[in-house]
Amino acid sequence: MTIQEQLLHKINNKTKPVGALGMLEELALKIGTIQNTLSPIINKPHIVVFAGDHGIAATGKVNPYPQAVTAQMVLNFVNGGAAINVFTKQHNIGLTVVDAGVNVDFDPSLPIVHAKINHGTADYSQYNAMSIDEVNAAIEKGRSIVQALFDEGCNTIGFGEMGIGNTSSASLIMHHLLNLPLNECVGRGTGANDEQLQRKLGTLEDVSRLHELNRYDITAHQLLCRIGGFEIAMMCGAYLKAVELNMVVVLDGFISTAALLVAKKMYAQQPTKSPLWGDLEGLLVFAHCSDENGHRKMLEHLNAKPILQLGMRLGEGTGAALAIPILQSAIAFLNEMASFESAGVSGKE
Amino acid sequence: MTIQEQLLHKINNKTKPVGALGMLEELALKIGTIQNTLSPIINKPHIVVFAGDHGIAATGKVNPYPQAVTAQMVLNFVNGGAAINVFTKQHNIGLTVVDAGVNVDFDPSLPIVHAKINHGTADYSQYNAMSIDEVNAAIEKGRSIVQALFDEGCNTIGFGEMGIGNTSSASLIMHHLLNLPLNECVGRGTGANDEQLQRKLGTLEDVSRLHELNRYDITAHQLLCRIGGFEIAMMCGAYLKAVELNMVVVLDGFISTAALLVAKKMYAQQPTKSPLWGDLEGLLVFAHCSDENGHRKMLEHLNAKPILQLGMRLGEGTGAALAIPILQSAIAFLNEMASFESAGVSGKE
Repeated sequence: MTIQEQLLHKINNKTKPVGALGMLEELALKIGTIQNTLSPIINKPHIVVFAGDHGIAATGKVNPYPQAVTAQMVLNFVNGGAAINVFTKQHNIGLTVVDAGVNVDFDPSLPIVHAKINHGTADYSQYNAMSIDEVNAAIEKGRSIVQALFDEGCNTIGFGEMGIGNTSSASLIMHHLLNLPLNECVGRGTGANDEQLQRKLGTLEDVSRLHELNRYDITAHQLLCRIGGFEIAMMCGAYLKAVELNMVVVLDGFISTAALLVAKKMYAQQPTKSPLWGDLEGLLVFAHCSDENGHRKMLEHLNAKPILQLGMRLGEGTGAALAIPILQSAIAFLNEMASFESAGVSGKE
Repeated sequence: MTIQEQLLHKINNKTKPVGALGMLEELALKIGTIQNTLSPIINKPHIVVFAGDHGIAATGKVNPYPQAVTAQMVLNFVNGGAAINVFTKQHNIGLTVVDAGVNVDFDPSLPIVHAKINHGTADYSQYNAMSIDEVNAAIEKGRSIVQALFDEGCNTIGFGEMGIGNTSSASLIMHHLLNLPLNECVGRGTGANDEQLQRKLGTLEDVSRLHELNRYDITAHQLLCRIGGFEIAMMCGAYLKAVELNMVVVLDGFISTAALLVAKKMYAQQPTKSPLWGDLEGLLVFAHCSDENGHRKMLEHLNAKPILQLGMRLGEGTGAALAIPILQSAIAFLNEMASFESAGVSGKE
């Protein structure tokens, strides 16, 4: 029997009607398969929040909050006052905050990972967001952050982000990689009103023309150079490493999923491929469907079934943090529930 | 300002875009309103599982599992092997199992609440399920079980059930109280195949005719006499008491919601009414949408928005147990997150 068949047999002999735990059964099967065991465990689950600034945000054309909020929120994370602090504390999930490219010089003593690639990206409504060297440095740093957590025993990981203006970058990525018109990819972000939304859409249409995002011959690295963000590039490297290490990867919302799409393309460009990325939906855990316009469509493109649908659109990895207890429930029923035989419960007549 | 206005003000000043925590914000508002405080708490959350047998189940006409499974599962609960054991243990939720009317005499030393009304209901395809004295005794017992938990400090409670054949009783309740044809109310329960489902539907159509469930002049008590279950009747009393005590009541699945519909009708019959039951949706927390046919329609009838949609259909209070951490997240963000002012984070420009 394959590991999947053995897992299904174990799941179907638990004291419950077949299929009665719904998505928990699918998750138990998926995590058991990833870990290649009938007794999977979730060890030291962790959320990494990558923070970065976007040059375009300083123009005020795509976002209602000032760019300074990115750095202010990093300090809020450090002080334990943000939503992701509350949820990771509640569920005993580790939290690492990374300065991937915030436009402020933080005190080096701050308990964050100081991995600043640059002081925010360049304004991609006029220039490339970053250089190829910056893309490569960010990817490499993302890989090493995940490797370090893995070395400490973490086997389950989710990636969140903070970056005023980064829904714009994510929308452009979606527009290019899914070949969809921008109005299907652009949303209200942190809360644009109708007028701001129209301005954002118009701005991004100009950006798409400037960077020729309608062309098919753009590599994943070039895409990041043109319209990426440091937090998004670093997250790409983090995904690539986490999948390579067979970790349970918990997808968060709109921006994290955009970064995954880039990582997927990056992977496809590599000369040698692991079979893992062939069935992406089978490999990753999708925490929730964000309320940000476009995320549902991204999930459909990935053939992904989100665990939670709570109408959240905050980022920071908050969706991933709330879904991890559901993963733990899936593992727990698989490991701890009695079977019909062990409990002396009769089956169907 | 009303308590709702004060809660909204507090929620909207947390360091996040307005509305970005979606349903968590609605839950924080609801629980704060129920507890009439800006700093709500969830204290000693508890699941009570009511178990009862159904005379009709012994005929085999409505269920694929033998009636003996009800008692076997009670022992499984006691031994910690069922899904509800695993999930309550995971989330540090109290668990009480009640013999409301199982067709087996349990050892009196078993750590369950021994509240047997009778050895299963009578077969309602031929007789009334129970007498009016039995209905009243069950309701009274349900009330006293909740009062005892409240007296021990519990302020958040969910009700689950175990009873082979009890989706049939719940379907008949839905059919009568929502005035819907039985084929919209009957589902596969523990896993009926197409043939078994048709047989179940045919049987219940006969039952509906025998007990004249199309009549409007049936009281809630009479409805329970005719086609109820001991676990359902006891749960009615439990709902009435929990609402009376201003507890946070977490609704589980199909059968629990059917019991709530009966409790609602029972309440409406009382001479003096608290204003609470006027806005039922505003008062209760709906844990999940079950995969059992009919539950979604019940929730729509109640104008209720379920927290989880995991395709579960197990009962036992498992949906409620998995939703309680989400309630705790809602409370936690309200109590623990920084405000824009306290964190020095800029608002919209």
